[in-house]
Amino acid sequence: MQKTTADLNRAGKSIGFVPTMGYLHEGHERLLQEARKENDYVILSIYVNPLQFGEHEDLDHYPRNIDHDLSVARRNDIDFIFLPENKTMYPAPLSIEMAVTKRAHVLCGRSRPGHFEGVVTILTKLFNICRPTKAYFGQKDAQQVAVVDALIQDFNFPVELVSVPTVREEDGLAKSSRNINLSPQERSEAPSIQKALQKGKSLMQTHNPDIQEVIQETRQFLERETRGKIDYIELLSYPELEPIEIFDRQVILAAAVYYENARLIDNLVFRPGEIS
Amino acid sequence: MQKTTADLNRAGKSIGFVPTMGYLHEGHERLLQEARKENDYVILSIYVNPLQFGEHEDLDHYPRNIDHDLSVARRNDIDFIFLPENKTMYPAPLSIEMAVTKRAHVLCGRSRPGHFEGVVTILTKLFNICRPTKAYFGQKDAQQVAVVDALIQDFNFPVELVSVPTVREEDGLAKSSRNINLSPQERSEAPSIQKALQKGKSLMQTHNPDIQEVIQETRQFLERETRGKIDYIELLSYPELEPIEIFDRQVILAAAVYYENARLIDNLVFRPGEIS
Repeated sequence: MQKTTADLNRAGKSIGFVPTMGYLHEGHERLLQEARKENDYVILSIYVNPLQFGEHEDLDHYPRNIDHDLSVARRNDIDFIFLPENKTMYPAPLSIEMAVTKRAHVLCGRSRPGHFEGVVTILTKLFNICRPTKAYFGQKDAQQVAVVDALIQDFNFPVELVSVPTVREEDGLAKSSRNINLSPQERSEAPSIQKALQKGKSLMQTHNPDIQEVIQETRQFLERETRGKIDYIELLSYPELEPIEIFDRQVILAAAVYYENARLIDNLVFRPGEIS
Repeated sequence: MQKTTADLNRAGKSIGFVPTMGYLHEGHERLLQEARKENDYVILSIYVNPLQFGEHEDLDHYPRNIDHDLSVARRNDIDFIFLPENKTMYPAPLSIEMAVTKRAHVLCGRSRPGHFEGVVTILTKLFNICRPTKAYFGQKDAQQVAVVDALIQDFNFPVELVSVPTVREEDGLAKSSRNINLSPQERSEAPSIQKALQKGKSLMQTHNPDIQEVIQETRQFLERETRGKIDYIELLSYPELEPIEIFDRQVILAAAVYYENARLIDNLVFRPGEIS
């Protein structure tokens, strides 16, 4: 792969890169389509990176369906699939470790210590192997986008980060491979996550909003609309992911909700004066 | 700089890169000459990286002589000099930090906590900006070479590490900008560092050498030959920099000696059966 991308670089070709852990859904497919539109060559990587799984997270049961993934790649006219093995990516224990000291300890990162360290480590490796002009990530994983933005800025990677809008069902529910684990009742309630975030966003667009009050009202709205258990509702600056007192910059309003067999996340990123 | 190297990449040109902190001496010049021989373009970077200086190390008094450095670059036909300012390299506090967990806590690293973290951070940034085909480092800083080797291996940087042999005075003393700080008496004794390492190397090439005994004899030899205070004499696997019990792989025998106004280092890297 590295030899191929060196050749593509030398030939002056642009490379779009979509890093995934496989089990591709429509969200991934949208990333592949964007990459296909904007680049000479597109590389899809499929690698379930053990380093980003916590001790209590079930790496061995992470879903895989390589035949399906290959057919998705084929129908989207992808040029290269990078499908490395663990012994290729981690042939020996690392001598150098990365610590994500900002943007990582809020939202989903709060309950996943070490997760974003694993993400930036594998992305550093993948960027150096695939040498992309542009790399594509879904805005649904907004915190991941923020951490990748930090990785690129902090270390001057010659890569343009492209954040692709979340793909949604007709009723507004963010597409996710976890949605199939919802009961019919849960599935009918789940669009309320997006509705609650929209409600919060509109409350923010009033004069001088009280941020804690907006979070509280968003939470109460969501509690009325679903029996799912709220993991968090947070409003932070974006992409810095720091608490704010005054709404004078771009922010993220994000939520995570536990259902019986699925934990769903969603978010909205917006600025003062932006009406949906 | 990053735009230039992107253009050179697209044009299929090879780039030799020599990262320095300036105040160039003959050792640096040898690196520039090697880079000049082996690449289409050569980039010299001059940047005194604050991140690799400890709290008690004198960053502000690090010697600088940019006019001299430019003349060295000119006479060696260097294509680009990258001379960034601190606000360019560190425009904001980093969100992601690197920790060097192996190869860093022996030899000179023992007394310079945080030093190699600073080195790998700035090199990651410089590699991403200068996008070299080959990067040149002096074997005199053998531990730095070992850490850069780990950086390139661990993170799959598409860079070939070239380690250039130490340039020496006629009497064997390793060239260093610190040599001018030696008194005449110290200067006459300092070649004994290299002689002691040669002595240790020859002791290692006997049948089944006792490693602790070799280190001890090297130390005693050096103590007889100079009044400098020995900081360390170590024998470790190379480039892993781990203690060994049996001499069955490549090793480094390294020494550091304090004189009144200069701390000198030197090393030999060799394998079983290699006679100098």
